[in-house]
Amino acid sequence: MIYMAVMGHGTVGSGVVEVIHTNKYQVEKNLGEQVCIKRILDLRDFDVPYADLFTKDFNDILEDDDISVVAEVMGGIHPAYEFTKSLLERGKSVCTSNKELVAAKGAELLQIAADHHVNYFFEASVGGGIPIIRPLHTCLAANRIEEIAGILNGTTNFILTKMIHDKMDFSDALKLAQELGYAERNPSADVDGHDACRKICILADLAYGKNVAPEAVHTEGISSISLRDVAYADAAGYSIKLIGRTKPEGEGLLCMVSPALLPKESPLAGINGVFNGILVRGNAIGDVMFYGQGAGKLATASAVVADMIDMAKSKDCVTSLSWVDDGKNYVVDYKTTRVAFYVRLQGKDLRNKIYRQFEKVTFIEHLREAEDEIAFITPVMVEKDFYARIAALSSHGVQLKNSIRVLDY
Amino acid sequence: MIYMAVMGHGTVGSGVVEVIHTNKYQVEKNLGEQVCIKRILDLRDFDVPYADLFTKDFNDILEDDDISVVAEVMGGIHPAYEFTKSLLERGKSVCTSNKELVAAKGAELLQIAADHHVNYFFEASVGGGIPIIRPLHTCLAANRIEEIAGILNGTTNFILTKMIHDKMDFSDALKLAQELGYAERNPSADVDGHDACRKICILADLAYGKNVAPEAVHTEGISSISLRDVAYADAAGYSIKLIGRTKPEGEGLLCMVSPALLPKESPLAGINGVFNGILVRGNAIGDVMFYGQGAGKLATASAVVADMIDMAKSKDCVTSLSWVDDGKNYVVDYKTTRVAFYVRLQGKDLRNKIYRQFEKVTFIEHLREAEDEIAFITPVMVEKDFYARIAALSSHGVQLKNSIRVLDY
Repeated sequence: MIYMAVMGHGTVGSGVVEVIHTNKYQVEKNLGEQVCIKRILDLRDFDVPYADLFTKDFNDILEDDDISVVAEVMGGIHPAYEFTKSLLERGKSVCTSNKELVAAKGAELLQIAADHHVNYFFEASVGGGIPIIRPLHTCLAANRIEEIAGILNGTTNFILTKMIHDKMDFSDALKLAQELGYAERNPSADVDGHDACRKICILADLAYGKNVAPEAVHTEGISSISLRDVAYADAAGYSIKLIGRTKPEGEGLLCMVSPALLPKESPLAGINGVFNGILVRGNAIGDVMFYGQGAGKLATASAVVADMIDMAKSKDCVTSLSWVDDGKNYVVDYKTTRVAFYVRLQGKDLRNKIYRQFEKVTFIEHLREAEDEIAFITPVMVEKDFYARIAALSSHGVQLKNSIRVLDY
Repeated sequence: MIYMAVMGHGTVGSGVVEVIHTNKYQVEKNLGEQVCIKRILDLRDFDVPYADLFTKDFNDILEDDDISVVAEVMGGIHPAYEFTKSLLERGKSVCTSNKELVAAKGAELLQIAADHHVNYFFEASVGGGIPIIRPLHTCLAANRIEEIAGILNGTTNFILTKMIHDKMDFSDALKLAQELGYAERNPSADVDGHDACRKICILADLAYGKNVAPEAVHTEGISSISLRDVAYADAAGYSIKLIGRTKPEGEGLLCMVSPALLPKESPLAGINGVFNGILVRGNAIGDVMFYGQGAGKLATASAVVADMIDMAKSKDCVTSLSWVDDGKNYVVDYKTTRVAFYVRLQGKDLRNKIYRQFEKVTFIEHLREAEDEIAFITPVMVEKDFYARIAALSSHGVQLKNSIRVLDY
């Protein structure tokens, strides 16, 4: 019998209990042993059939030597960090869906786990239920990872999908996402890209073995995208997605989150609604993509419970999951990297002024209602250089309405 | 230092050597140890820089106690089966890309491996380099698998893509696939669906824990598909793909390979060229899809080498990969299951005759050049029943030009 505990009984936590209950047969068949949730930690009271399992005292889990497997699904860094640290030091394996904690403290917690011959798993921290952490670490272990690019946040992808397919503007699409429970009342973590940022940091940590701090990662959200931009992108054969991406760049890493125009044929461009997709480019395997529900109670719980099963199974084999946090920042200044831009400008005599700054651009000719507006795509250039030219244009009375990177996967 | 051997130096075998050589840094970093390919078994002679590693004598590998990890990439059942058995009994871990062997003897070889505390891995046997075996076994372990449906053969998907996008007919598309090296000179294993059949058998074995023999699986190829069918499907909003699928059906399993019309919005419908895609539907996770190159030298080698790394790492922990072969056939008669059909008929007074057999059908009105031809989609019905109605129609002088199942993922 494997005794387990769950810390946090919010959406994911209650989903973990539900999945273990509903799929007890599969769970125990795959584990080869019976499982029992012995404790659930939450400060709130719940009127559920298993109310007797609840405790408000963390020590009821920490000091219970029966409990060998714990799921931390509280979210936030404190006290999740302190609790996880104590549990690992006590010789208990811990898994989590807490991207904020893994992105901030993953390297340290993995080291503590290794030192105490237990596991710290976090499959659910990226892509919800989508298998990505294990496949990246194990199945792609023979590859040099050339690039990772992903639609890592379902809420923003839902909003963009509504803007693209239903011509809903950003604020209406956001309102709908909130009504449907996809977005929080304070949607900043999603729409400003912070959630996607934590996830791309975790993927970069794993793929390149170096700690990438979310604070070091340039992060843009989707709130400035208008239906005009969506329409111009569409006319030029692109879809706008919020993309987190990382790749080696010189001695360091490029790691950033921003909206991007993707060619409609791109596998990522076809991912709609709350779904996530993560594209991994390896030097042997080429492109592989992982697709599924990036959030949601049961989907996320599915990954947490899979981690719990795996931790219970691999008591004696500690994973080699790890990356080094040597305090250095390996993230290069994105302004020094090369990319193409979609640009929408307003002003007079635009073409001549544009030609004076950009030798060669592709104008998006369609839907040019307004005489004083124009949209085009630049060649690939160093970002710094791009901003300088835009600055020069505005000094000639040209107003930048929006600029969005153009990626090619 | 981990000493390894490779049995077979064809496309995949030479790819394995190349990947281990090219990505030595990643391989050894991920493994945490140095690796050395000590022996390569092949009956042919090769003029390669590492020619000194070759042997024609299997015993040079079997009896070399340094060698703990062996990749079997010979293909075919004999002597791969005998070699693998001996190596496992000798306490060496073996991995393979040999779908024919895994589909036929997987249950037995996994049992032998377990009995001797070694591993038998086969990530590369399905989907080439695409991670699917481990994710299905580990990351989705908390799910009841409700269905698996996949584009499992890159050659046929390339041919169908050419027919759909370039209006090339089957034989020209096949010729092109052969010129490009995607199809064998004898293309039967691909175009008749046998390759896809072995792969869906392996996925069914894993997902449901029962052995599914390829001989028990109804398998149809793509050679009967005409450009007329492609055009009708397109007009009705579908793409034609070769789909291997399995799901629980009553006390048994539905497991079959056949062409199918998929709605164009389906994630599988968007998979083109030599790419594969595998959709797994779990009761907790919902739909997840794995996408990538299903074949090719380096992509397949990427999965084989990942298995070699994992086997070297997990010396002391034997995987729980297994399924039972109790000699029983769990595959239900597909004719007793329910599905909708696309039908193309030729004859006179077709609509009246059709209405006499099928109360309710959806005619595909577009591109009806020929007065004596008609295409339509039936309601979902038991297959037996469908064939009876078609038989009745032909007894009234109506000729069945083609019928293809309509699936909805």
